[in-house]
Amino acid sequence: MNAPMLSVAEARARILDGLRPCPPETVALSEAAGRVLAQPVRARLTQPPADLSAMDGYALRAVDGPLDAVLRVIGEAPAGHPFAGHVGPGEAVRLFTGSVLPPGADCVVIQEDVRADGDRIQLREAARAGRHIRRAGQDFTAGAAVLAAGRRLTPRDIGLAAAANHPWLIVHRRPRVAILATGDEIALPGEPIPSGGIVSSNAHALAALVRAGGGAPVVLPIAGDDPALIAGVVEASAGMDLLLTTGGASVGAHDLVQAALVARGMALDFWRIAMRPGKPLIFGRLGTTPVLGLPGNPVSTMVCAVIYLLPALARFGGEMREVPASEPAWLGAALPANDHRADFLRARLHRDGNGRLIATAFERQDSSLLSVLAAADALILRPPHAEASAAGECVSVIRLDLLGV
Amino acid sequence: MNAPMLSVAEARARILDGLRPCPPETVALSEAAGRVLAQPVRARLTQPPADLSAMDGYALRAVDGPLDAVLRVIGEAPAGHPFAGHVGPGEAVRLFTGSVLPPGADCVVIQEDVRADGDRIQLREAARAGRHIRRAGQDFTAGAAVLAAGRRLTPRDIGLAAAANHPWLIVHRRPRVAILATGDEIALPGEPIPSGGIVSSNAHALAALVRAGGGAPVVLPIAGDDPALIAGVVEASAGMDLLLTTGGASVGAHDLVQAALVARGMALDFWRIAMRPGKPLIFGRLGTTPVLGLPGNPVSTMVCAVIYLLPALARFGGEMREVPASEPAWLGAALPANDHRADFLRARLHRDGNGRLIATAFERQDSSLLSVLAAADALILRPPHAEASAAGECVSVIRLDLLGV
Repeated sequence: MNAPMLSVAEARARILDGLRPCPPETVALSEAAGRVLAQPVRARLTQPPADLSAMDGYALRAVDGPLDAVLRVIGEAPAGHPFAGHVGPGEAVRLFTGSVLPPGADCVVIQEDVRADGDRIQLREAARAGRHIRRAGQDFTAGAAVLAAGRRLTPRDIGLAAAANHPWLIVHRRPRVAILATGDEIALPGEPIPSGGIVSSNAHALAALVRAGGGAPVVLPIAGDDPALIAGVVEASAGMDLLLTTGGASVGAHDLVQAALVARGMALDFWRIAMRPGKPLIFGRLGTTPVLGLPGNPVSTMVCAVIYLLPALARFGGEMREVPASEPAWLGAALPANDHRADFLRARLHRDGNGRLIATAFERQDSSLLSVLAAADALILRPPHAEASAAGECVSVIRLDLLGV
Repeated sequence: MNAPMLSVAEARARILDGLRPCPPETVALSEAAGRVLAQPVRARLTQPPADLSAMDGYALRAVDGPLDAVLRVIGEAPAGHPFAGHVGPGEAVRLFTGSVLPPGADCVVIQEDVRADGDRIQLREAARAGRHIRRAGQDFTAGAAVLAAGRRLTPRDIGLAAAANHPWLIVHRRPRVAILATGDEIALPGEPIPSGGIVSSNAHALAALVRAGGGAPVVLPIAGDDPALIAGVVEASAGMDLLLTTGGASVGAHDLVQAALVARGMALDFWRIAMRPGKPLIFGRLGTTPVLGLPGNPVSTMVCAVIYLLPALARFGGEMREVPASEPAWLGAALPANDHRADFLRARLHRDGNGRLIATAFERQDSSLLSVLAAADALILRPPHAEASAAGECVSVIRLDLLGV
C-alpha cells in the first residue's frame, strides 16, 4: 500500500474540511463555563442601569460644595434602596457604593473627605461635578453584544452574561466522540494481562483529552484483533460525531481496523503523514460519521490527538480561536538537522534570567516513552528539513499546559 | 475601623497559612484527569515488559545478517502473541511493532529492508545487534514512582497511570466551597430585579472559577441585607472547606456580612489590602471553617479570587505548583507611576514580530467594568510605588487563559 506522504498542514486541513460545528443547545448559565457560544450574548439591560455612586459618601450639588461647606443630610440611600426625594440646594444624601445617585445631585463626596455631625456634614475637600459617579451604561447598554459567538466561556464571561441578565445560554452541543481501542495484546488496567500483552493506556488518555477539548467521550469496549468484533463495536458509533480508533493504523498484516471499517462501507483515506511521532493515520467516513484512526503507539496517539483531534474538537465545538496555538521559545540545547518529516519533540520549559521561555528537548525521544511524554511541558515543532539549530535559537512550541492536556 | 493596610503577599500568606490539603479519596482512573494526586503512582509492572520490536520486520541473530544474507522464516509473532520457539542460526521470525522479541534473536530488520519470498527472506541491509528493539523497562520499571504526589493529572498522566496498571488513583478530595452573595440590591439573572437593583453576577462567576481551580462549589441562596438571614444561610456552610462571601466587605453601615458572621462567633480579620481593584477583604474562621469575604464589586471580586482564592484552592487540592503563576511580558503602551497600592491592570496580550508577548492595559480600568474584565487576556502586575514605565519595558503578567479563568 503506497499511500502518498501528506504534510501535517495538509492532513489537518483535510480533516477539518468536512467537519461542521455541532448544533446548538440551551444550557443553564451555571453549567456554561467552558462551553462555546453558538450565538452572541446581547445585554438585556443597561449596566449600570442608572448613574451610581462609585464610593461610600454623600451625593450633593457640586455648586454647593466648596471646601468647608456645610450641608444638611436629608436622607440615605443604601445600594438597592434609591432615595425617593430630590437633592436641593445645601442638601446631601448619604450613599454607599452602588447606590443610585438621587435626582438633583451631580457629584459624590467620599466619606473620608467629610466631617459628619448629626445631620450636618462639612466638606474637607471641595466637591467636583461628576466625581465618583459611575455613569449609566458605562459597562454595557441594552442590546449590545457583550460576548461573541464562537467564544469558549470563561468564569469571567459567566459573570458578564449574568450581569447582562441571561439565566440560559445557547452553546454548541458537545461533540460525542466514540473511542475504540483494538488489539489482542491490550487489557484495561487492573484486568488480567494476556501473555506478552500490555495495559491499554490510549482509550482513557484520549477520553480525558476529548473532555479537555470540550467533547463528550464514549469509551467503547476493547475489540480484539477480529474483524467481526471490530465491526460489531463500530455499530455502537451510530449517532456519534466522531469515531476515534487507536491501534491498527499501520501497514502490518495484523492491523485489522482498516479492513473491518472498509468492510462496513467506510470510504477510507489511509495517510502516511510526514511527521514523527505518529506517521500513520486513517481518515474516512462510516455513513455520515467521520472516522479518525490514530496509531496504536501511545505517544504517537497523544501527539496526533494534540495536532489533529484538538482542532477537530474545536471545529465541532464552533470555536473561533486557533487550536493548538504555538508560541516562540528559545532552545536550551542544540538540535540536529531534521529529515523530511515534521518532528514534535517532547521538551521541558523554563524561564531564563531575562524571562525568555527556554525549551529543552528530552534526550530520549523514542515514541514508546509515555513517561517522557507525561513529563513534557511542550512539543518543539521541527519543520521538515530544518537545519541543525544551536542553543539559543528561536523555535515554535506547543505549550501542553495551555491546552489542558 | 482602622484596620492595618496589608500587602498582597502578606494577605496571601496569612490566608494560605491556615489551610491544609483536603483528605484523600479514591477515584476511578477515568475520572481522575484534573485531580491532584495524594500519593505517588508507582508502576505495578515493567514497561515494556520484555524486549519488544519497535517496527514491523523480522527478528534474527545479527551474526546471521550480513547484507544479502538469506534466512528462513520459522514463524510469526503478532503483538500479543509471543513466538513459542527459539530463533536459531539462519532463522528469522516475522514480528510487528510491539511484538515480543523471541529468545535467541538479538536484532530486528525492518520489513522495508527485506526481500520476502515464501518462507525465505533476503536482507537488503545488514543486520545490527540491538537494532529496532525497545528494551524491557526503558519506559519504567515495576515499583518506580512514575507520577509524583501533588501533581494535577493531565490526560497524558492518565495514559501513564493506565500503562502502570492503576484502575484507581488516590487524589485529594475536591474542596467544597460555599458561596454566599449578599445584598438587598441583587437578584439572580431572569428573576425580578428590585428597583435600583442589579443582577447578581458574582456567585455564578465564582462558582465557575472554583470549578476551574479544582473545587466543588455550592451556591447558597442570596441573603438580603438582614443579619438573621445571613446568619441562617451561613449555617449551610457546615461541613464546607471554605465559606466564600461576596459583598459586604467594606466599612459602610450597610455592610452586614461582617456583623452577622461575628455574631455567629466568627473570629474576624478585616483587611484593607494595598491593592487595586479589591481593597477590602474579610478573613476568619467560623468554627473550623475558614471564611474568605470578597468585595461586592464584580471586578474586584474576580481579581481577588484569582489572587487569593485560586492559591487557596491549590492548597486545599494539595497542589505543588505556584498559583497563580506570572510570566514576563513587554508593555504595548506606557503606564503612569503607581501609588502605594499594587495594581492589577486588565490587559490584552499579543505577540510582536519577534515573538515577544506584548501586554497592553485597557484605557478604562474602572473596577465596575465587567466587559473589560471579560475581554482581558491577562492582569499586568504593577507593584506599589512602581515608577512610570515606557512602552517596551518588561513587566509581570498573570495570564488568565493559563488559569482557565
